[in-house]
Amino acid sequence: MSNRLITLTTDFGSSDHFVAAMKGVILGLAPRARIVDVTHEIGPYNIEEAGFVIAQAWRWFPQGTIHVVVVDPGVGSARRPILVEAGGHFFLGPDNGVFSAVYLAAKHTVHVISNSRLMRKEISRTFHGRDIFAPAAAHLARNVPPARFGKTISDYVRSEPSPHGTVLKVDRFGNLITNFHIDHFSGIKTQPFELRIGGQTLRRLALTYSEADIGEVFVIVGSSGYLEIAANQENAAKKLGCGQGAPVVLRLY
Amino acid sequence: MSNRLITLTTDFGSSDHFVAAMKGVILGLAPRARIVDVTHEIGPYNIEEAGFVIAQAWRWFPQGTIHVVVVDPGVGSARRPILVEAGGHFFLGPDNGVFSAVYLAAKHTVHVISNSRLMRKEISRTFHGRDIFAPAAAHLARNVPPARFGKTISDYVRSEPSPHGTVLKVDRFGNLITNFHIDHFSGIKTQPFELRIGGQTLRRLALTYSEADIGEVFVIVGSSGYLEIAANQENAAKKLGCGQGAPVVLRLY
Amino acid sequence: MSNRLITLTTDFGSSDHFVAAMKGVILGLAPRARIVDVTHEIGPYNIEEAGFVIAQAWRWFPQGTIHVVVVDPGVGSARRPILVEAGGHFFLGPDNGVFSAVYLAAKHTVHVISNSRLMRKEISRTFHGRDIFAPAAAHLARNVPPARFGKTISDYVRSEPSPHGTVLKVDRFGNLITNFHIDHFSGIKTQPFELRIGGQTLRRLALTYSEADIGEVFVIVGSSGYLEIAANQENAAKKLGCGQGAPVVLRLY
Repeated sequence: MSNRLITLTTDFGSSDHFVAAMKGVILGLAPRARIVDVTHEIGPYNIEEAGFVIAQAWRWFPQGTIHVVVVDPGVGSARRPILVEAGGHFFLGPDNGVFSAVYLAAKHTVHVISNSRLMRKEISRTFHGRDIFAPAAAHLARNVPPARFGKTISDYVRSEPSPHGTVLKVDRFGNLITNFHIDHFSGIKTQPFELRIGGQTLRRLALTYSEADIGEVFVIVGSSGYLEIAANQENAAKKLGCGQGAPVVLRLY
Repeated sequence: MSNRLITLTTDFGSSDHFVAAMKGVILGLAPRARIVDVTHEIGPYNIEEAGFVIAQAWRWFPQGTIHVVVVDPGVGSARRPILVEAGGHFFLGPDNGVFSAVYLAAKHTVHVISNSRLMRKEISRTFHGRDIFAPAAAHLARNVPPARFGKTISDYVRSEPSPHGTVLKVDRFGNLITNFHIDHFSGIKTQPFELRIGGQTLRRLALTYSEADIGEVFVIVGSSGYLEIAANQENAAKKLGCGQGAPVVLRLY
Repeated sequence: MSNRLITLTTDFGSSDHFVAAMKGVILGLAPRARIVDVTHEIGPYNIEEAGFVIAQAWRWFPQGTIHVVVVDPGVGSARRPILVEAGGHFFLGPDNGVFSAVYLAAKHTVHVISNSRLMRKEISRTFHGRDIFAPAAAHLARNVPPARFGKTISDYVRSEPSPHGTVLKVDRFGNLITNFHIDHFSGIKTQPFELRIGGQTLRRLALTYSEADIGEVFVIVGSSGYLEIAANQENAAKKLGCGQGAPVVLRLY
């Protein structure tokens, strides 16, 4: 088990030394660990985008994979570092709600990471990825039991569902992925609703693309459980003139 | 042999979870496989660019390497997935002509991938990279023989040579790489020709940069076998005002 | 030791086949080597930026790591390829000053790479990364002793400290990292000085961010030893209207 997989998801970009420093720390402590980049192109401090990407990625990896997610406006301030066990996988990151979709998807246990013997000796103010999360990933990969990192907590941060949402991402087909998760808004399947975006009001939830008229803009539950706005055989983003960050309002009746 | 190399070339970009999902599937099935990214920055659906990049990259890897190329406007539609054996390497991708330069370069056998036991159980409409090609790469890495994937075919797609070509790429020195392969236009070595690009007509094929006058724009056969347009000690792209996608016409007399 | 780490830092970008070709050559010769990308997004031919990034990255990797840095306007011309032993690490690259900060940081020995049996048989004019540095890294990873690559030299290139400097990088907090290394300008700690940038003149060297007034722009020694220009709780780059490449002048009194 010492050649365990570790995935990395950050907003560090790919032109600086930050990601390499994390990898150096990991491989210095766990030489046989295998590292896979999910992406380092998360928008700066965009917790929701990071949460969406890791929610999409984690289930494709084998059991026991360790997923490190470092995106936090508050890294270095009050955020607690946490270790989440969920669905047979491990998740490391700041307690800022970035794992909210993981919490929805699987039974989970959350530990605060407080054992300083499992961190680098000097903790910088601004680089917890290198000083706390990279060593934690390496120690987990070497089979240090989760309980050794710190005690279990139940007051961890989850993003609150709100009817005022946003477009997380636009995919390559022009579908707009919102931050509305079906588990928070399951009423949409049975109740009338209005979803407002880009000056339009959508009222149809389709199960497949083809049940909508050609060019019609509609709502569909994406493979990740997030509501998506799509157009049959057309680019919904272009049609609505909307992109990442556009506001979306959902009302159930 | 179970720690075989797998290379990935796609148009998925680096900000989404798509590449990671492929890697997770591969490493779940073939934990000791080693994955190298060629690039994920192929222009969306640009089969010719992908074909050029893999043609340039594959020969630098050791025998037995498995090259996965996923770029296809028609993925999920009628394209057959194929497995190519060529030059001691393996190639996996859609049957859309992306391996045309590999076919020119080496003796080859092409199998259609039809054995559903070597795919993921659920095949999505849009993500054959994860559901067909990633498992195929993993099974190949585990030494499943090519014949088990499906029967040999001879009616696979090759790009047809045409005198109306295009600029595939501009390299960092400003050389314009065309999609004209010397094996299709070998007459250029012995016959008079005219190559038209950016309002200019070129008539000189140089063997080395220095045989042209300083600043002269000329044609040269690149290391990959594709005709390139270069300028001695100058940037040909700037000189001609042309970039990727610019039309090129070649006439032999 | 045959599964040694090799890091890569280049200005090749991530859309071409160049990096993959280097990796293919390395893994063909040293199948168990493990490759980590530091970055391939160094500005074209920007030796100082590459020198800064590798100076920041190398110390986070374990002893024995091999760092390949290929950024050189003169690759293929007169630059000698060198192998540097420093601080228990190895560095491979052109002798163009890119390792100047490594020389400052650690005792070092520099070898010219002249043994053609440790290169590819054909050396291209323009791609020493693939033909010289990739094979050298692979042979080092297989424990070929440094002395076998070529003789020790003492006339290797170091960048000369000059009071006329430049901004190497702007970090994500808006701090401006200059190319002034504290080891060249240690007088700044004890003498009055003037650092001019963006029409302003700075005279304060702070040890911590909080000792400056809120919004004040000041000078601080970064973790890498380079002088940085920062603002307490504000974005110094925005405040000064300066970015990468902006001129900086330092005068000690």
